[in-house]
Amino acid sequence: MCPGTPILLFISPGCRDAAGNDAESISFKNVLRNIINNLLYMNDTICALATAQGGAINVIRISGEKALEIVSGIFSPKAGISLMERKSHTMVFGDIIVEGSEALDEVLVSVMRAPHSYTGEDTVEISCHASHYITQQILISLLDKGARQAEPGEFTMRAFLNGKMDLSRAEAVADLIASTSRASHRLAISQLKGGFSKELGMLRNKLLNLVSLLELELDFSEEDVEFADRKELMALCDEVTTVISNLVDSFSVGNAIKNGIPVAIVGETNVGKSTLLNALLHEDRAIVSDISGTTRDTIEGVMNISGVSFRFIDTAGLRETHDVVESIGIQRTIEQLGKSSISLWLIDPTATKEQIEDTATKLLPLCRGKKLAVLVNKCDTVDPITLSDMMEWGMQLVRKHGEGIEWNERDIWAISARQGTNMDHIEEFLVRSADMPSSGNVVVTNVRHYEALVRALDNIKEVKQSLADGISGDLVGEPLRAAIRNLAEILGEVTNDEVLGNIFANFCIGK
Amino acid sequence: MCPGTPILLFISPGCRDAAGNDAESISFKNVLRNIINNLLYMNDTICALATAQGGAINVIRISGEKALEIVSGIFSPKAGISLMERKSHTMVFGDIIVEGSEALDEVLVSVMRAPHSYTGEDTVEISCHASHYITQQILISLLDKGARQAEPGEFTMRAFLNGKMDLSRAEAVADLIASTSRASHRLAISQLKGGFSKELGMLRNKLLNLVSLLELELDFSEEDVEFADRKELMALCDEVTTVISNLVDSFSVGNAIKNGIPVAIVGETNVGKSTLLNALLHEDRAIVSDISGTTRDTIEGVMNISGVSFRFIDTAGLRETHDVVESIGIQRTIEQLGKSSISLWLIDPTATKEQIEDTATKLLPLCRGKKLAVLVNKCDTVDPITLSDMMEWGMQLVRKHGEGIEWNERDIWAISARQGTNMDHIEEFLVRSADMPSSGNVVVTNVRHYEALVRALDNIKEVKQSLADGISGDLVGEPLRAAIRNLAEILGEVTNDEVLGNIFANFCIGK
Repeated sequence: MCPGTPILLFISPGCRDAAGNDAESISFKNVLRNIINNLLYMNDTICALATAQGGAINVIRISGEKALEIVSGIFSPKAGISLMERKSHTMVFGDIIVEGSEALDEVLVSVMRAPHSYTGEDTVEISCHASHYITQQILISLLDKGARQAEPGEFTMRAFLNGKMDLSRAEAVADLIASTSRASHRLAISQLKGGFSKELGMLRNKLLNLVSLLELELDFSEEDVEFADRKELMALCDEVTTVISNLVDSFSVGNAIKNGIPVAIVGETNVGKSTLLNALLHEDRAIVSDISGTTRDTIEGVMNISGVSFRFIDTAGLRETHDVVESIGIQRTIEQLGKSSISLWLIDPTATKEQIEDTATKLLPLCRGKKLAVLVNKCDTVDPITLSDMMEWGMQLVRKHGEGIEWNERDIWAISARQGTNMDHIEEFLVRSADMPSSGNVVVTNVRHYEALVRALDNIKEVKQSLADGISGDLVGEPLRAAIRNLAEILGEVTNDEVLGNIFANFCIGK
Repeated sequence: MCPGTPILLFISPGCRDAAGNDAESISFKNVLRNIINNLLYMNDTICALATAQGGAINVIRISGEKALEIVSGIFSPKAGISLMERKSHTMVFGDIIVEGSEALDEVLVSVMRAPHSYTGEDTVEISCHASHYITQQILISLLDKGARQAEPGEFTMRAFLNGKMDLSRAEAVADLIASTSRASHRLAISQLKGGFSKELGMLRNKLLNLVSLLELELDFSEEDVEFADRKELMALCDEVTTVISNLVDSFSVGNAIKNGIPVAIVGETNVGKSTLLNALLHEDRAIVSDISGTTRDTIEGVMNISGVSFRFIDTAGLRETHDVVESIGIQRTIEQLGKSSISLWLIDPTATKEQIEDTATKLLPLCRGKKLAVLVNKCDTVDPITLSDMMEWGMQLVRKHGEGIEWNERDIWAISARQGTNMDHIEEFLVRSADMPSSGNVVVTNVRHYEALVRALDNIKEVKQSLADGISGDLVGEPLRAAIRNLAEILGEVTNDEVLGNIFANFCIGK
């Protein structure tokens, strides 16, 4: 609620409050305070530990109308004017004095005044010694003085509600904190910087243009004149469709970057897929054994190579089996292959050429449209002639059965998963094969955004259909406005409490 | 090193540096930089993460002559003047720009200028989003720009070396961060606030007064006049001895508060000592079984009751045994009893009176000088008449065998360790029995301080002996100066690198 928002207040004579006081004796101030406390949630002053427990210092953040007043109640500056009179963006050293006791800690207090703070409200940050005891005592004292423990993400939610950032940028804050690779960080920071918001703004302007053309036509509908050139409208729709489609398509890339690009490791049973996974992850993640069919479930592991996250998926061997559990595993292999964009095909050079071809005929059709590398394993135990023969055989099989696979003939290596030989070639292949958006391109990483864009795309499709069918302007306007609403939802311009609650519940407390 | 400290530089003609350049071609600037880098460690600019990894925000602290310059190299303020021109104790919002890349993060940068900072040097704090990736990238960029990763406790060490705090106060910073109870926190904050330093300062003044009296005498030694009245000197020595003795004595209390006041749980084998420990700690710490002699080792657990930490010591039963391991346990029981100041004697009401008296004759003499509570266990399984009979018997036994024990006849309760009955009485007894220093009393908590005080006490004893033996002033002066040196060591006025290194190595990085 902004200062100055009018509040309409009805107190009917004879009404009583919870304590049994009648309307006359309920002071106007109390009523107002109740409204503020109970209804206008936003006017609370909230506090939370913003740092993790531990380290050398802890930072407690307080935000809200009474932030300065509440902190003043427990803080005594070493020198100079009181906290209430401090300018924005200044710091002051002093003591935390808790009710009737000696100094609790020597702290540095930072003052950021509305609207020039993260939340847009008066904000105070207390930087104290990182003792659990001290931090708890300060938080308890702040609650005593009238602050409320912040909900997860509430600081960022306030920033959004106070117009400091749109919803997609608020969501980027959570992504930024969670980012673990250069690539996922780049997407989050570009979203925080408003790249996505700008793109959506441009889209919306185009749609509003469409709406106004149609509305103009509506005003003159009795005269049966079509102001809006249908061809022009169609062209505008096509343009919008292209932009939204690109954004929708970028989601698979964006999602892959955020969660790791899925890489499927596939091949004959017992060829060493789990060992390769371990070698790539530099740890013993999958259980490795010599019994065929050990890996019954897909095991994942994420690794950062050159700033990009890859999610490795080990898969059950593609052997025919009567074991129910294992056949479920094989079904999953096929599913995982469907989700991944990169496949590593592992060949066992000790198998017969027929066996390998048999696997290839089952496996390679599943890799259509994906990037592939062929790895001939066990190079440490096989003689060089057999090895080069098998590499040649692998190449022939891909040429023969690998129609539609993105494969470069360079991308075949003799490796030893057990000894870690030639892992660098695989890593280089993965980084080269990762679909990375070019700098400046907007990429969708958030499921909520993706879904809203898909809905908007459907709306535009409907608009186009109506235009093609020669349906009148007022009926075309309906799906058009729905498209605008769907885009506005991404930025949080139209939204509801439930959606907001879900978004910010995923934040940590203190953010 | 303070600005303005003269550096004497000798470069002999013909000398060469590591790269083989002769003196003439070695620029003065390079030589100076080498000296600064290699010898005058303090002139580095250091950086470290000051918060724990995680949470919503991370704070990176940079301190040193070049702090502002280094941070300016990677920071671009959103508006206004550059970082270099900012006033002390102000904050500015902006972007971290890492070499040739887009913005890494939006951060809040705080400037604290020398000498008004924690370290006494120019200090900058970068408050960034708590992503591991971002934090690492910022730290790497700071190192690139010429900062050095701080050693553990180096910020506080600089604060000490720059005269911002004496050594005992610097040590209090570590204690403050580690404090987990109200009591241990109070000792640390009072030490940080200089309570101990003030006490030592007063002591030293008294000793300096003694020295000057003796030195005056020495100046006139040929005239064989005793300026210093021996009686007055002796009285002054007694006074100093009393003060230091009190401080030395306070160590056992201070140490107990810091690490938990030791409470021994003693009694017959299988009476339920481990069960009581578990009930007090609200967890299954000790292994409990029905076989006599289960507890072979002393198991400790620390619990916070009403702001005071207690360290509970479970002990092997006092049964005669041929089991070697168990007899070691019994030996330890006796040792633990020696260390603890409070004992809980657990009586088994199902045992015979003779058995209980037998235990009492072994056990109660060991509790001399300690505070005692008598607990008749298993109140849930024994009939009321037997129970009250056994309580009466316990009282008689303490009266009979408990000479020198601090025991109040109120302090006997029927309890059930298994059901947790009457634990509140025990807790109330413990809090009441804890030796807490009265407010304002200086308490020694640090082993290093304790040892220095004990040495000073020995020195003063020697002074007194010399005075008593009529030894001349110049010889008395020697132990007197040693006493002053020992006190000065506590404050860090005389110290060596090794001592400093040991102290600050116990700090965390970033403090």
